[in-house]
Amino acid sequence: MADKELHRGLDGIAVAETRLSGIDGAAGELVIGGFPVEELAGNASYEESVFLLFDDRLPTEPELESFRAELAGYREIPEEVEQVLRRAAREDRDAMDALRMGVAAADLGLDATDPTEVATRLVSVLPTIVATYWRCRSGREPVRPRADLGHAANYLWMLTGDEPDPAAVRGLETYLNTVVDHGLNASTFVARSVVSTESDLVSAVTGAVGSLKGPLHGGAPGPVLEMLLAVHETGDAEGYVRETLASGERLMGFGHRVYRTRDPRAAVLSRAAERFYADSDERAFFETVEAFEEVAVALLSEHKPDRALETNVEFYTAALLHGVGIPRELFTATFAVSRVGGWTAHCLEQRADNKLIRPVSVYVGDRDRSWKPANER
Amino acid sequence: MADKELHRGLDGIAVAETRLSGIDGAAGELVIGGFPVEELAGNASYEESVFLLFDDRLPTEPELESFRAELAGYREIPEEVEQVLRRAAREDRDAMDALRMGVAAADLGLDATDPTEVATRLVSVLPTIVATYWRCRSGREPVRPRADLGHAANYLWMLTGDEPDPAAVRGLETYLNTVVDHGLNASTFVARSVVSTESDLVSAVTGAVGSLKGPLHGGAPGPVLEMLLAVHETGDAEGYVRETLASGERLMGFGHRVYRTRDPRAAVLSRAAERFYADSDERAFFETVEAFEEVAVALLSEHKPDRALETNVEFYTAALLHGVGIPRELFTATFAVSRVGGWTAHCLEQRADNKLIRPVSVYVGDRDRSWKPANER
Repeated sequence: MADKELHRGLDGIAVAETRLSGIDGAAGELVIGGFPVEELAGNASYEESVFLLFDDRLPTEPELESFRAELAGYREIPEEVEQVLRRAAREDRDAMDALRMGVAAADLGLDATDPTEVATRLVSVLPTIVATYWRCRSGREPVRPRADLGHAANYLWMLTGDEPDPAAVRGLETYLNTVVDHGLNASTFVARSVVSTESDLVSAVTGAVGSLKGPLHGGAPGPVLEMLLAVHETGDAEGYVRETLASGERLMGFGHRVYRTRDPRAAVLSRAAERFYADSDERAFFETVEAFEEVAVALLSEHKPDRALETNVEFYTAALLHGVGIPRELFTATFAVSRVGGWTAHCLEQRADNKLIRPVSVYVGDRDRSWKPANER
Repeated sequence: MADKELHRGLDGIAVAETRLSGIDGAAGELVIGGFPVEELAGNASYEESVFLLFDDRLPTEPELESFRAELAGYREIPEEVEQVLRRAAREDRDAMDALRMGVAAADLGLDATDPTEVATRLVSVLPTIVATYWRCRSGREPVRPRADLGHAANYLWMLTGDEPDPAAVRGLETYLNTVVDHGLNASTFVARSVVSTESDLVSAVTGAVGSLKGPLHGGAPGPVLEMLLAVHETGDAEGYVRETLASGERLMGFGHRVYRTRDPRAAVLSRAAERFYADSDERAFFETVEAFEEVAVALLSEHKPDRALETNVEFYTAALLHGVGIPRELFTATFAVSRVGGWTAHCLEQRADNKLIRPVSVYVGDRDRSWKPANER
């Protein structure tokens, strides 16, 4: 086996065919369920996006109504799970740890075993887990879900306990649609690997949550916001960028493993943020954000002319989620609240035409050691 | 991307170098931490095997004593997690579902964040989760762990509430050592994929538990035992095997994806089972097991002369675990109780020289769909 070529990151190795989303990194294009992301994100409700991923078409009005009701019916969590989330909050655990604990128990109290029903339960319950944890973490009582609200609106309701503002709901919904699926990213690959043993969707999504927790995957929008707020305070975007580049550090919010142009999701989220902030008290903050992007892109192309370091999805995620009222501690968990639509759809796709995913390792250790009792070592 | 070669199962693709274990499928050889499995399994305590995987050498006597004490100190679970396990038991959830719920919350109440300490906590706590669930599932109260007992003995103690029999402890310990690691199997690959995003070990092991749950990976020793008990009842091994082969069904307990000869673990477990049953009341059952293997191997080579369908690890796992008193509903969970040593060691190895594991997918869906409002669909 010593001459075997090693593919440590599986770079460029195709593991699955999918009809769920496709990325053209060179052209900066993303297709989700057959729609360019620009076409889908601002028009659809999150329920429509998930239906699209599950069924490969948009729902008719009655189908949408019934899917909404089905999702709304799966929002409650059992008392035992709430107690675990309360304890995670008391211990100041990260939101992604709490989410992993809650999702791992998502089938408690659930009668359904049909994979599409389990998928629907998972999509439905993530906001409840995140919001329950967050209310306790911030010293307040959890707010019960409301079946009369759509998915995005109900998430804001459970976080704040206030009647959600339609502009914030639209902003959040656009975010949820924009990041709902993105090819075979690390967490989606974990989800497909788990179901490839013929395990269940709760197990797969729990694994995916654990993968998304890692800073190399889901972890940067929080720090991006801190950076933007700091720059808004000083008013000196150029100074901040020059100093960061001079110190040799990476500038957060720019550059992506796949895209060599501006991430198409950044464009969608930037327009959504622009619309949202236009009527908001924090318009001045958004002006800082735009000015920061302009100066950063200019200085990056001066600094590293050979690399295309364009604005990535995290940059406008930070600006938009902050605007609509998501606390930065929940940015990665809110990413999961969206991406669970993609994870579950990929699991259903993998199940429909499954093959066990099992690569190999190369052994580089000793051989033929021989046993000695502990007192002779 | 349409001309990209598709590697759906990642067959034969090498993703990692490892010093933890190496398999030679053609020769039927397995090396664990530098030792042939035959050399390690019957000699080591489980604590020694795990130390070996973590540190690439066996512990001295004082090191072993201190590692035993450290493991024993991490056995308790918080009340909130116990309540979740009680509910899982009340709802008749599978043991692997309960284990996933418990492991996902393994860092509740834990101060440590150092990865090796978290690994030690994980190895330590799995038996408590499984036993707590099982006691409730079988209508009894959980039994608290005992720090004066070794890892394997304490697991039997928590399952039964009886002082463990040394022969059963040795049998279980041999099993735990035999399956503690096995190259890059599906669940170990999931664990490495999760930590490759720089996520934590609790997340990684939770994902691995979910993967092991799938019948294509961890799921057959229970049914093997049912088959053996049924044959023991009728006394007609040959009739059973002939009937199964004639009906075109797969004979459980024979054949393996990797090994083309007798699985070396089957040999180790068969000797351990032989030793255990020699002094047991159920000696007659073990005679059935041996007779069944003999007739099955003979008839399989007659029936499929071109394929090497030899006894696999599940066959003697079923016989040995049944003998030492593990209920068949816990066979896969007991596999996890062992394999968590390998999972965590692989995570530590991946962290020490990490690269994000992220393959790609090929998009085969539509493009350029355009949006229509729901009432026009």
